[in-house]
Amino acid sequence: MQSYTAPLRDMRFVLNELHGAPPLPGQDDFTPELTDTIIEEAAKFCTEILLPLNMSGDVEGCTFENGMVHTPAGFIAAYKGFSQAGWGALNAGQQYGGQGAPETVAKLVEEMICSCNLSFGLYPGLAHGAYLALASHGAEELKNLYLPKLASGIWSGTMCLTEPHCGTDLGLLRTKATPQTDGSYHINGAKIFISAGEHDLTENIVHLVLARLPDAPPGIKGISLFLVPKFLPDAAQNPGPRNGVSCAAIEHKMGLKASATCQMNFDDATGWLVGEPHRGMQAMFTMMNSERLSVGTQGLGLGEIAYQSAVAYARDRLQGRALSGTKFPDKPADPLIVHPDIRRMLLTMRANTQGCRALCVWVAQAMDRAAHAASETERAEAEEFVALMTPIVKALFTDLGFESANLAMQVYGGHGYIRDHGIEQLVRDSRIAMIYEGTNGIQALDLVGRKLPANMGRSLRRFFHPVSEFIETNGQHPQIGKLVQSFARGFGALQLATAFIAEKGMTDAEEAGAAATDYLRLFGVIALGFMWLRMALIAAEKNGGEEADFYAAKLVTARFYIERILPQAGALLFTIKAGKAPLMDMPEAAF
Amino acid sequence: MQSYTAPLRDMRFVLNELHGAPPLPGQDDFTPELTDTIIEEAAKFCTEILLPLNMSGDVEGCTFENGMVHTPAGFIAAYKGFSQAGWGALNAGQQYGGQGAPETVAKLVEEMICSCNLSFGLYPGLAHGAYLALASHGAEELKNLYLPKLASGIWSGTMCLTEPHCGTDLGLLRTKATPQTDGSYHINGAKIFISAGEHDLTENIVHLVLARLPDAPPGIKGISLFLVPKFLPDAAQNPGPRNGVSCAAIEHKMGLKASATCQMNFDDATGWLVGEPHRGMQAMFTMMNSERLSVGTQGLGLGEIAYQSAVAYARDRLQGRALSGTKFPDKPADPLIVHPDIRRMLLTMRANTQGCRALCVWVAQAMDRAAHAASETERAEAEEFVALMTPIVKALFTDLGFESANLAMQVYGGHGYIRDHGIEQLVRDSRIAMIYEGTNGIQALDLVGRKLPANMGRSLRRFFHPVSEFIETNGQHPQIGKLVQSFARGFGALQLATAFIAEKGMTDAEEAGAAATDYLRLFGVIALGFMWLRMALIAAEKNGGEEADFYAAKLVTARFYIERILPQAGALLFTIKAGKAPLMDMPEAAF
Repeated sequence: MQSYTAPLRDMRFVLNELHGAPPLPGQDDFTPELTDTIIEEAAKFCTEILLPLNMSGDVEGCTFENGMVHTPAGFIAAYKGFSQAGWGALNAGQQYGGQGAPETVAKLVEEMICSCNLSFGLYPGLAHGAYLALASHGAEELKNLYLPKLASGIWSGTMCLTEPHCGTDLGLLRTKATPQTDGSYHINGAKIFISAGEHDLTENIVHLVLARLPDAPPGIKGISLFLVPKFLPDAAQNPGPRNGVSCAAIEHKMGLKASATCQMNFDDATGWLVGEPHRGMQAMFTMMNSERLSVGTQGLGLGEIAYQSAVAYARDRLQGRALSGTKFPDKPADPLIVHPDIRRMLLTMRANTQGCRALCVWVAQAMDRAAHAASETERAEAEEFVALMTPIVKALFTDLGFESANLAMQVYGGHGYIRDHGIEQLVRDSRIAMIYEGTNGIQALDLVGRKLPANMGRSLRRFFHPVSEFIETNGQHPQIGKLVQSFARGFGALQLATAFIAEKGMTDAEEAGAAATDYLRLFGVIALGFMWLRMALIAAEKNGGEEADFYAAKLVTARFYIERILPQAGALLFTIKAGKAPLMDMPEAAF
Repeated sequence: MQSYTAPLRDMRFVLNELHGAPPLPGQDDFTPELTDTIIEEAAKFCTEILLPLNMSGDVEGCTFENGMVHTPAGFIAAYKGFSQAGWGALNAGQQYGGQGAPETVAKLVEEMICSCNLSFGLYPGLAHGAYLALASHGAEELKNLYLPKLASGIWSGTMCLTEPHCGTDLGLLRTKATPQTDGSYHINGAKIFISAGEHDLTENIVHLVLARLPDAPPGIKGISLFLVPKFLPDAAQNPGPRNGVSCAAIEHKMGLKASATCQMNFDDATGWLVGEPHRGMQAMFTMMNSERLSVGTQGLGLGEIAYQSAVAYARDRLQGRALSGTKFPDKPADPLIVHPDIRRMLLTMRANTQGCRALCVWVAQAMDRAAHAASETERAEAEEFVALMTPIVKALFTDLGFESANLAMQVYGGHGYIRDHGIEQLVRDSRIAMIYEGTNGIQALDLVGRKLPANMGRSLRRFFHPVSEFIETNGQHPQIGKLVQSFARGFGALQLATAFIAEKGMTDAEEAGAAATDYLRLFGVIALGFMWLRMALIAAEKNGGEEADFYAAKLVTARFYIERILPQAGALLFTIKAGKAPLMDMPEAAF
């Protein structure tokens, strides 16, 4: 069965011990005591309300009838509880009714939601993305009307980007916006793959739609962003007349079945411009970048429940005897967890998941710093770091989340492949995260094509400097020095790979493209390795106290990561240095 | 859409050019002309009859009603055509109505069946496994009655091993066999996960059931094998009275939905002993080993259709412009296939799939040699090689088949995640192959625990010798010498890893267990690399002729494999050498 207890101890470790810092100006209220309470309450809600609906929601799925989407049994009540408790407003601005919680805390809450019910989580998740895009780029009038509705969860939101002929390449999009005399626009076109495009959880749905104005230049620079509500608000800011937006169908998908993925038609739908004309991509990227970090968090959340479910089964299932001799002579067989190959799988899941959590909160901390920086320099530095890490968090975490789900299935054996235990659902649900909000290949291109060269490579130093410094300081540490030295070799591979791409990619973009995915993985493996060493350092210092077991496990897991996962860094460097020829020499017709 | 054309040119290359050898005694009829005709006819049947039922079978699935299982629409007719054309009898013995075709040819036919409809393929596949177990271990009377029925496909077969509390660890099984005065037995017990346990394709089903005799010693050495037909044959060898075996339910699974996975009850079912009492595992392993190679072939077959589907989509889907500049200025965008990262995915699928095909036929050739050997030495050598490679074929091919299906989905993006194109079905269908017939972790333990030490390491030399010889002969080859040298470094890693495991594992079985999965992958990566170099050597010699494009593509793909896939060998050696400590030092309670 899907087994899950919120990993609160590890969350507190990451939040307070690993990344602990004095509260930023404007976030003074969020003391460790308060953040503790928040994550404890969130854990309760997620495990008591959302988790029990996860498997039933998958089996039932969303249904579509006469243009209406019905979410599975229990979702309406759960969503009501979610909104009333204010979970949707957690990191919304206080001026719009939000609580203004730090991103660090919000991301941990998000992780728990994703662990317990990813399909459910998409509904408020999209609303928050819409909130952010509107908050950053919308006119005051739009913000005052829509942001409180989105923050409270009374209304939800969507991102309407994809069309049948264009996903990654939005420059091809055809949806049209025609100016009306009252300053509004008429939107016409068809969108696909719209998560939460239609459903029965909220009284209104606020679509953020990419479309072209009549005078728009072709391609990506001719796209504008529009706000299109399902129901036009009346004078009292309540849902009024139905707008010209409708759901034509929902998709039958591999997983995420309780999340409605809609085909949306816009027929003379009334909308309002968000941001400047032809600059819709910039506005949408505010939403997209936030969503990409959220999608990474989905990988993390699914990795955690997969790990816990596999551990529970490995403790429970009796099969075979330990290779070192029977461990439980009173039982007909030993539990799976005695077997080294089972432990290899469990520790891989554990090391990757806890590593991702540490990295997630590190990036979230920089988001908070960017939002509450004391100086422009500090803000710029924090933003550079977030921008650099966003594709890594999105692609690495989702790759590893899927890997963890598959390892959990492998621990379960045939019982993982049948529906009863809910493990195959984790595999199906986690798979989409590697695709949506920009496939992981696109993330890799973003990393090598935009983030590496950004600011003459200065962004990169936001990560490389602290790593170099750590290695220098701790290379001779009595307890973790040896691990630091192993890690330093992996970091050397990343430095060489970076230099290789910087040099080759400058004259030939295909060289950067050929290296992209392997480079992102290499960067990610090193980033998690860095997190593990920083965690090991704390654990080494705190070891022996009341929570000796907790810190000892951190040390064992760190060692596992460095000795059994990090070695791939060297292989990735080799692969990267093979260059583009082995890929591009193949004539298209020969495939 | 699932796109598939049987890769006949590559199959002929593997069969005649790579592994070409004079026909073995007893197989003289099977000239290249005849084998060509066989694979061409099989290709026609698979693409015209089985492929069109693949997606519809997945959507409809099997249904269970009143103890009966109904296969999806079209399956009954397809199965009838399959049997009437003699495909089920292809590699059955001529004395039982089979055609006695070489395993090399049979495996290629099997591959096409798996590509086009894996769910369908399980029904005749299980029958063939039952045929083999019975042919090797059954009494003459049983063989004469049942083998012609199984070969012709009029009756089908199953393997009834798993029980609710035991899968991997069959020593725990509880099903009982009670001797009757007429020499038969009454079988009582419950089995789960029985593929093709009940269905509507054949008039009778022959179950091979593991059970315990009353005087059986506990554990794995007290298990016997029994033949239990669904209907007891009458005097005319037709299905007579219903036997005490029934299907209680079918499983809801992640994939393979058109294959019935049954819970079977045996209530005083009449059965007959196959082989000797308490030696059922040996008899079952005949079937199991054959099935393991077949499951490997499933990974290969799914990898091939995934590759072809992804290539078709990458040629068709216009998205973005080539990084080196627009390739198709007359189109709104360039096709995906211009992008290096898309090519990385396609070439990974191609290199792994074609490599697996080459290895598959190499192993099948040894199976033929074992069956038709001129001398006992030759037979023993061939059998050692097959035994060594069986866990590698099973685990590596299924890992790579699943990887290919996932890469295909990644190429498709969001369109791969929805049901319409049939790509997510390939992911779901291919996933089980890593689990059934012994999880891939169990295969790895078989490799390090049984196959490595077998015959004082002599088995291993059946692979190591030809590789060393090849490196020595071709290390300075003007065209492929550089690739051979790179490969030699990878092979060196395998040699070092082997020595490490041999030394450590001798005193501590957990050390071997800790290394097992990484070692199997390392072995597999080298085995495919060896296949690629042998293929490259032929391609280098034949390059320039009428089929220059075919051979040139082989050379490019070989280079891709050596430069972009093989480097993982070094990392795997590092991981293996980390030993068991990082796995076993974690206290169970700390997970």
